[in-house]
Amino acid sequence: MEAAAKAAMPAVSFDTSPDRYRHWKLTFDGPIATLAMDVDPDAGLSPDYKLKLNSYDLGVDVELADAIQRLRFEHPEVRAVVITSLKERIFCAGANIFMLRGSTHAWKVNFCKFTNETRLAMEDASRHSGIKFLAALNGICAGGGYELALACDEIILVDDGNSAVSLPETPLLGVLPGTGGLTRVVDKRKVRRDLADVFGTVAEGVKGKRAVEWRLVDAVYPTSQFKQRVAARARELAATSDRPVDVAGIRLTPLAPKVSDTAITYSAVDVQIDRDKRAATLTVTGPAAAQPSMPADIVAAGDQFWPLRAFRELDDALLRLRIAEPMIGTIVLKTRGAPEPMLAVDELLLAHQNHWLVREILHFMKRTLKRLDLTSRSFFAFIEPGSCFAGTLFELALAADRSYMLDHPDEPNAIALSRMNGGPLPMSNGLSRLETRFLGEPRRVTEALAHDGPFDPAAALDAGLVSFAPDELDWDDEVRLAVESRAALSPDALTGMEANLRFAGPETMETKIFGRLTAWQNWIFIRPNAVGEKGALTAYGSQSRPEFDFNRT
Amino acid sequence: MEAAAKAAMPAVSFDTSPDRYRHWKLTFDGPIATLAMDVDPDAGLSPDYKLKLNSYDLGVDVELADAIQRLRFEHPEVRAVVITSLKERIFCAGANIFMLRGSTHAWKVNFCKFTNETRLAMEDASRHSGIKFLAALNGICAGGGYELALACDEIILVDDGNSAVSLPETPLLGVLPGTGGLTRVVDKRKVRRDLADVFGTVAEGVKGKRAVEWRLVDAVYPTSQFKQRVAARARELAATSDRPVDVAGIRLTPLAPKVSDTAITYSAVDVQIDRDKRAATLTVTGPAAAQPSMPADIVAAGDQFWPLRAFRELDDALLRLRIAEPMIGTIVLKTRGAPEPMLAVDELLLAHQNHWLVREILHFMKRTLKRLDLTSRSFFAFIEPGSCFAGTLFELALAADRSYMLDHPDEPNAIALSRMNGGPLPMSNGLSRLETRFLGEPRRVTEALAHDGPFDPAAALDAGLVSFAPDELDWDDEVRLAVESRAALSPDALTGMEANLRFAGPETMETKIFGRLTAWQNWIFIRPNAVGEKGALTAYGSQSRPEFDFNRT
Repeated sequence: MEAAAKAAMPAVSFDTSPDRYRHWKLTFDGPIATLAMDVDPDAGLSPDYKLKLNSYDLGVDVELADAIQRLRFEHPEVRAVVITSLKERIFCAGANIFMLRGSTHAWKVNFCKFTNETRLAMEDASRHSGIKFLAALNGICAGGGYELALACDEIILVDDGNSAVSLPETPLLGVLPGTGGLTRVVDKRKVRRDLADVFGTVAEGVKGKRAVEWRLVDAVYPTSQFKQRVAARARELAATSDRPVDVAGIRLTPLAPKVSDTAITYSAVDVQIDRDKRAATLTVTGPAAAQPSMPADIVAAGDQFWPLRAFRELDDALLRLRIAEPMIGTIVLKTRGAPEPMLAVDELLLAHQNHWLVREILHFMKRTLKRLDLTSRSFFAFIEPGSCFAGTLFELALAADRSYMLDHPDEPNAIALSRMNGGPLPMSNGLSRLETRFLGEPRRVTEALAHDGPFDPAAALDAGLVSFAPDELDWDDEVRLAVESRAALSPDALTGMEANLRFAGPETMETKIFGRLTAWQNWIFIRPNAVGEKGALTAYGSQSRPEFDFNRT
Repeated sequence: MEAAAKAAMPAVSFDTSPDRYRHWKLTFDGPIATLAMDVDPDAGLSPDYKLKLNSYDLGVDVELADAIQRLRFEHPEVRAVVITSLKERIFCAGANIFMLRGSTHAWKVNFCKFTNETRLAMEDASRHSGIKFLAALNGICAGGGYELALACDEIILVDDGNSAVSLPETPLLGVLPGTGGLTRVVDKRKVRRDLADVFGTVAEGVKGKRAVEWRLVDAVYPTSQFKQRVAARARELAATSDRPVDVAGIRLTPLAPKVSDTAITYSAVDVQIDRDKRAATLTVTGPAAAQPSMPADIVAAGDQFWPLRAFRELDDALLRLRIAEPMIGTIVLKTRGAPEPMLAVDELLLAHQNHWLVREILHFMKRTLKRLDLTSRSFFAFIEPGSCFAGTLFELALAADRSYMLDHPDEPNAIALSRMNGGPLPMSNGLSRLETRFLGEPRRVTEALAHDGPFDPAAALDAGLVSFAPDELDWDDEVRLAVESRAALSPDALTGMEANLRFAGPETMETKIFGRLTAWQNWIFIRPNAVGEKGALTAYGSQSRPEFDFNRT
């Protein structure tokens, strides 16, 4: 199955907009937006399954991610979002099981990763952008449906004698809830572990008063009161928001990269694919010299303002590489441009970080860099003359598994830090990349940030900011060998190694979801008890019952 | 392979003693002990492989675990331990690859779990018992050998132009270092992640000054100075210890349970196996009324003092169930006895917790309960009249995935807490089991601990201390159904679910090792790229090179 992985992956575009949504209705009532799920069963990414009962595939989640993103940038007036369903007595049945069953292992894993990122983006919007989410469960809410609800600030469930929340993955499918469910149940909602254990093993779930007592939902209301209570609570949540008043949003226009078999080309991001080497080179071009200097200019520039434009392109490029290029194991990160405008943009962003749009841009840059941290490919930064590894763009080098900086006597080459490297772009572990890098020598963080001016290769190496600084005689061989020897290693071992080395220091709910939960889910996703001929995922919906090898591991 | 798992697992006894060691020499020089590895290649657990170059299998690690345990109880005079090798130019080549290759998945996983627990026990001895560990690497130190060194407080490497430390698992075998290596490199030794990335991919490792600069070792010395420097540093480490002076240790005598096909019987612990139900009942009998009242009496009672005796038996029973009974998926925990002596023992232990032996006993109880938390079986506590779920033994109910307490009008049934439930027996996450249970309602911890006297079923349920309290009419059906329905679920999904639900709250290096690292390793251990016909683990040592499916996941 793995060998056919790429062929078996349907084409996906991450570019959509509300007028093209097939599965969600986004409506507005002043500060309250309603995002209503109404999945079109016939509009799945593949014709092999029907998305019944508001079950979803990646295409449904791409629309959700797009909606969350647009609420932040296009609708600064929105202060609370009600997530509900337009289907009668069904909120959401979770990820489509027939889709999962027909997918390659890599697809399952990438699907779960993206849905996890989308749910974390909702929590990010709540925490940092003043958009509060209220899950209004108007019916059955199972599996991934409940995991979507868990990502909201509050959950209201209709009390109609039938509607329950449930995580039926373990009892019905022999797998785990793959989108943070277990972690959020015990770590976010702090459900008692014995009750969580029961909840995680009863397919029918928990409803009514018991769901409140177990902390699985925040409130239940009878059908007659449900809509009114949801509306009232949404207004209360909206009142807690710090979003601006009387400002207009900006438009997020389509990215429309040029895509060929060997290249993906955007305005500030370029990806060149070398299939023989199983490597790609991703180059980000830094900002031009002329940049806005006031928030009004930034609003006027809209999505063409360099940080937003470049990071939207970077985000899209990473998603395309993940989904469409599973054989490309190594990504070389390069930059080009002049460092001064990049450093000026950093100062501009930080000077106006309380402006609503600047705030959104900063958090979007942060999320994109997290997406890079969480991409299971090897990243090497190659720092060459003419590059722009300064401030925000130096985060690419810090996010890379290694960095190589050319030390050429005749070609000046420098990196530079800015205040952006000191905290505004934290990793999933809550620390800056510099702090994570220097866990063992925290004084180096202070020293590096206090350093005046750029670092030449010797200074960068001395400060511990780059891994290696080969001279011009060694450079070509050394970087070529780095890429070639990486490509020879087991891709699975690299995925596991990187997942363990990239996130030193404190763990958060976020790192738990991607570290602990995802790793267990990946394991279960390839065990015969789930995906074998008689596994539970294979047997689901057929006449036959699963047969397990009961050896405990 | 899985189906033959049990048959393929060699018999292992966890009962050994220095006079029977085949692989280690334990010698003493005042406060300094030397634990020297000298693996007998012909004394592996299976005749299918030779333990060359100080490579190890589970049998080697059982001796190491025994030695660490005896240093704590039998040798209170020991303040520093030098871990070294008697082989020329070889410290340790790591886990034996031929053993790994020939093992079932379950065996690999259990092997790694036990070795992880042993290394954590060394760190526990250093932190809590004043025994400092110095790794004296007198030669090549690869893979699990370096992971053993990482568990020591300090690492000295000989600088002979040849001896290096390395983690060659990824480049040579396509797997991860399975015994905490990656986590300890970045989280304990705080090696920079880019250097860790290089280190983790070069089979030959790092030696000499660079090993110090990269923080992989603490010092390197030329061969001529090595022994003297090690001895001097061991004396310095010993000087920092708070172990007692002029006291004699106690003896840990063999446990010698009676083992049949359906039962394992110790003095205070009894295991009854029901193969049809794939369940076992583990019953702990609480202490008798007459117990020592002063430390001198405890020393005199030695390993027959109830807490030490019962917990040694519990520890051994858990290990036997893990290794020898992989098909037993559910373990019902019961206790019997009078609660008063149990509560008196708790008070006695806490009153004298600074006495060296009491300290050791408390930490051993803690480690045994952690072993239970980390055992991938479902645990249900059944609390019935005549039971002794009080204080320390109530930790069994708190460690269980669920607890059921019989509420019978004619048969009094009670649980009780003691100060032992308030912190002295923390989980791997650093919290008490009560704190972890009530993350969402911390006041309940205080209330439960402040409660005067025992809790009857209604009070226990109300306080959130038990999951369910069925009455006498429902009891039989409810507990039977709990066990039967658990047995019907996918054992893999249960393992993953329990690993995610049991450890809410903060993450520590310990939980990272068992959660994140172990889960990734388990995943890699069943991927074709490692264990398939052309996988790297399969190909190692043969003429053929591994062939990978290069799809990144």
